Formats: sequence, C-alpha cells, structure tokens
Amino acid sequence: MNPANARTRITTIAPETPVLEFLASRKAEVDRALERLVPPAEAWPVTLHRAVRHSLFAGGKRLRPILCLAAAEALGGRTDRTLEPACGLEMIHTYSLIHDDLPALDNDELRRGVPTCHVVFGEAVAILAGDALLTHGLGVLARYPEEQRSAGAKMRVLNMVVDAIGTTGMIGGQVADLEAEKMHPTEELVRTIHESKTGRLIRASLRTGAILADAAEESLERLDEYGRLIGLAFQIKDDLLDVEADAGSLGKASGKDAAAGKATFPAVWGVERSRAILAQSIEDAAAKAHALPGGGGRLPQLARFVGQRSS
Amino acid sequence: MNPANARTRITTIAPETPVLEFLASRKAEVDRALERLVPPAEAWPVTLHRAVRHSLFAGGKRLRPILCLAAAEALGGRTDRTLEPACGLEMIHTYSLIHDDLPALDNDELRRGVPTCHVVFGEAVAILAGDALLTHGLGVLARYPEEQRSAGAKMRVLNMVVDAIGTTGMIGGQVADLEAEKMHPTEELVRTIHESKTGRLIRASLRTGAILADAAEESLERLDEYGRLIGLAFQIKDDLLDVEADAGSLGKASGKDAAAGKATFPAVWGVERSRAILAQSIEDAAAKAHALPGGGGRLPQLARFVGQRSS
Repeated sequence: MNPANARTRITTIAPETPVLEFLASRKAEVDRALERLVPPAEAWPVTLHRAVRHSLFAGGKRLRPILCLAAAEALGGRTDRTLEPACGLEMIHTYSLIHDDLPALDNDELRRGVPTCHVVFGEAVAILAGDALLTHGLGVLARYPEEQRSAGAKMRVLNMVVDAIGTTGMIGGQVADLEAEKMHPTEELVRTIHESKTGRLIRASLRTGAILADAAEESLERLDEYGRLIGLAFQIKDDLLDVEADAGSLGKASGKDAAAGKATFPAVWGVERSRAILAQSIEDAAAKAHALPGGGGRLPQLARFVGQRSS
Repeated sequence: MNPANARTRITTIAPETPVLEFLASRKAEVDRALERLVPPAEAWPVTLHRAVRHSLFAGGKRLRPILCLAAAEALGGRTDRTLEPACGLEMIHTYSLIHDDLPALDNDELRRGVPTCHVVFGEAVAILAGDALLTHGLGVLARYPEEQRSAGAKMRVLNMVVDAIGTTGMIGGQVADLEAEKMHPTEELVRTIHESKTGRLIRASLRTGAILADAAEESLERLDEYGRLIGLAFQIKDDLLDVEADAGSLGKASGKDAAAGKATFPAVWGVERSRAILAQSIEDAAAKAHALPGGGGRLPQLARFVGQRSS
C-alpha cells in the first residue's frame, strides 16, 4: 500500500537470547513493517482505514509472520526478503478473524482483548475491512520481495497461499466448523476442520519463508510435517484455553466453544488426553525441526512456545 | 482451482458479426472457462461450492471479461492467453456483488434475476462465498497465463488489480457509498463513489487485457481514458435503469436507490441531463477506442452496447 517507503531491515538475534525476548523483538519488527504497509488512519476512506487498523493493531501475537521469518532464517534465507510477505500473511490471518467474529458467523464481541471490528465499526464496515485485508495481504505477497529475480518464487508463494486459504483450505474449514454445530463431533471431523481452518495458514506461513529462502524440496517436506504438528498443537491449546482460562487473560470470551456445542479436541478426547496429545505433538514438532539442516534455528523453541502460551 | 484441466481455445469472431452475436459467443466462452476454473458443486465443502456457483452462474453479462478480451484483441494480443485472467476478474466482480447485497450493506434480495446468495444460503455462507471468489479470482490472476515468460506481466496485472479493488478503489467506493446515504449527494461525491466503486474494476479489466497483449504505454493510457468514459456511462445507465425499469426486466429491485436516498447521477443531474451526458460519454469513448492502433477492434461497439443495454 505504501510501496515507496524505505525497506525495514530486520535484526539478527543471537541464538542464546531467550525465546520470549526473541518473540518480542520479532513482533516489534513485524508491527513496524505492518505500520508502513497499510495506509494511515486519516487516508480516505477514513472509517475503513480506522477499522483495518483497529483489528490489525489489536495486540496479535504475530505467530504466523514470526514462523515465516523463523523458517526462512532456519533454512539460511535472508529475513529482510521475507519481512513484507510475512506481514501479508498476518493481514490474511486478521481478515479471517474479522469475518469469523461477525454476528452471522461466530458472533464474538471480544478479540485480542478489545471489542471486535463489527462492535466498533458496524457489520458493513467490518465485512469490508476484512475484504480489504485479504485483498492487500495477497497484494503484499505479489509485490514483495521486489527484486526482479523473485518473480518465480513470489508466484509459487501466491499459488500456495491461495490454495491454503481457499475453498478447500481455510474458508472450507470455516464452513465445516459452522456446519459441525449441528453434528455430534468425531475426532476425524475435528481434525478435518482444524487442519483446514487453522493448520493450512500456519503451514503456508512456514512454507512461504522456506520458498523465499530457496529451500530444497526435502527441507520443505520436513518443515511441512513440523507445521502440521504445531498447527495441531496450536488448536488443541486454543481449545484447552477456552475450557480453562478466564476471558480476562484470554482476551476473548472463554467457555464459549463448549457452550455452542463446537467441534473441539477436549469435546472428543477429554481434557487429559488432549493435554497428552498436545505435549506429544510439541515434542514431535521440535524433533522434526531439529532434523532440518542447521538444527532448525528457533523452530524447536517456537513449537514449545505454542504449547505453553497462556493466550 | 482445476489447473490440470485442458486450456479452452477462444474463437476468432469475424469483424462483420453483429455485436449481440459477438457478445453471446464471448459470454459462452467465458462461462465455459469459469465452469472449469471453479470446483464442482459436489466438492467438499458442498454448501460453499454451491453458493459460489449460485452467484457465479446466475446469468451475468460477463462485461468485464469481455472488455478484457476485447482490449487484448484490439491491441494485437492472443486472446487465449487472456481468457483465464478475464475469468478471474469476473470472480472478483461477483464477490463484490455478493458482499454488496448482504443485509448489513445494500440488503438486496434479487440480483441478475435470481435470489441473492444470502437469501438462498444464509449470511454466513454468503460472506464466505464472497471471500472465496475474491481469493480464487486473485489466485487465477497469479496462475494464468501459465508460461514462464508471463511472470512479469502477471505481477503487473496483480498489483494493478489489487490497487483497483483495494481500500482506495472498489472497497473504498463501497464504504463511501454507504456513508453517502446520510449526506446530500453532490456531483463530485457521486463521481468519486462510482469511479472507485464501479469504474476502477472496469478500467482494470481493460488494462489486464492490454498488459497481457504487451501493449505500448501510449495505448494503455488511451485505453484508460476509454475505460474511464465507459465506466461513467455504465454507472449513469445503471442509475437510469433503476429509475426507469421494472424489476422483471432489470433482474433486481428497481426504484430502490432513489427510495434509499442513494448518491446517483439522476439525483444530482436529473434524468434528462443524465441521458445527455451518457450519450456524450459513449461517443467520446468510441472515439478514444477508434484512435487506438487498428481502430480499437470491438471496443467502439462495446461502448455503445453499455449505453443501450436494458439490464
């Protein structure tokens, strides 16, 4: 959106820096890059840009862009070529949250600790703000990195991301999730929903970093296994947090999934078994990452973070 | 979505073929290509694909893809390289219609002569079907034409289309249109809304064809003037049809804009002056197209069709 602005360089963070410091540093860099990639709040049409910014800067963890950057770094790529595409993925993630939260879908009034987009700006503007973030998120993937020689890699990223978020990916998972409210949840149904609704974009984020790092096919496949495992872990943890946490620490309504009869892992496995599978998935993911050339960089730590987060 | 399917070849239509026959033939080709570019109605998730197909195959005129193909043809390009991107533009147009028709926006129950997406499938699925058509429309622009040498042109098309449909283009115009309901419409306001809401995607459709035909910058600029004029003509005609026609021939509710206090050209100019400006815009557009190398092919005729259509 503001392509003329100077590129943000991304810092090299020493391997011994604790993971929470690493996460805070990367999050700050992603936030700064997002800031220059979306139009200012005072640009026409003001309401729309305020709504876009409201949801984009509501305190997200930036997990998808951080995974994208970590994948690029782990595979020897230059993170400064990956920063903007990583932000494009966060825009796409935020679009999906805005639309999921709408009254016609999950009807959520609280997200990331602040009122959802439609609560503040009304349904019409929230629908259009989601549309805008999807449009510009894909646009960022088409534009960056800007060097001519990246055209082929950008195309590969775009086609892969469109597939991941399309009717047989994220959007399909959302429809299946809505339809599941009327069904008795089975393990297979819960897995299918979450692999498409949450897992595909997480895997696509890792793959984006890897493609832009010109990773070998073997590394891409190993990374995909890692992504599949942390995607599963992420969703189990999300479901467990909904059962265990209070709305204050979670930043959104808690206990809501169970009340709505949602297809969740605790609903099919119970809480104890969900915790055990979560722990196992995290360890398996860390092992997959360790097996990457160079030991996977920050990826094993990030897997553990996904399992331990409290919001 | 079904990239493995064989390419559709597009026919060469003799210059002396009457324009209505030309339009019918191109529309049939676009429909066939759309048919193979979206997943079948029975693919998972069935409801979503049925909703996508309901709106995509509800009898649209296919004006944007036909303009895209005509621009490519007028500038000496190969229409078979342009057919899929032209379909991507129609998917994007259909997404914008589905979301515009939602209860939170224009609340329209009839479109192209059939019940709107949310009337048949509910609001949640309609929102997601719109999201899907936007996602896959941009995805088609990223994927086609498939030859390696097209990577640069595809990137140019994508960036240009994203700009045209983004927050300062089509989506911005939609927000401005909603906000104008509370204001007294002025000529400047009506022009701003429609240049962004309708005009930008029409111009982008022409420009897509021209870029894929490797047109010279001078031709692109002349084509853009043509696009600006027929975009204006298209919207004046739309507003006039809303005043003059009945719902049966229009395929959607009539008299609705005036009742809603919408910012329309007849509201600021009156019906007679709107008709005069419409006629002038058509003639100017035809003249611009005639000045292109080769006389603009079908473009002058298409300008006249825009001014004379009855739905």
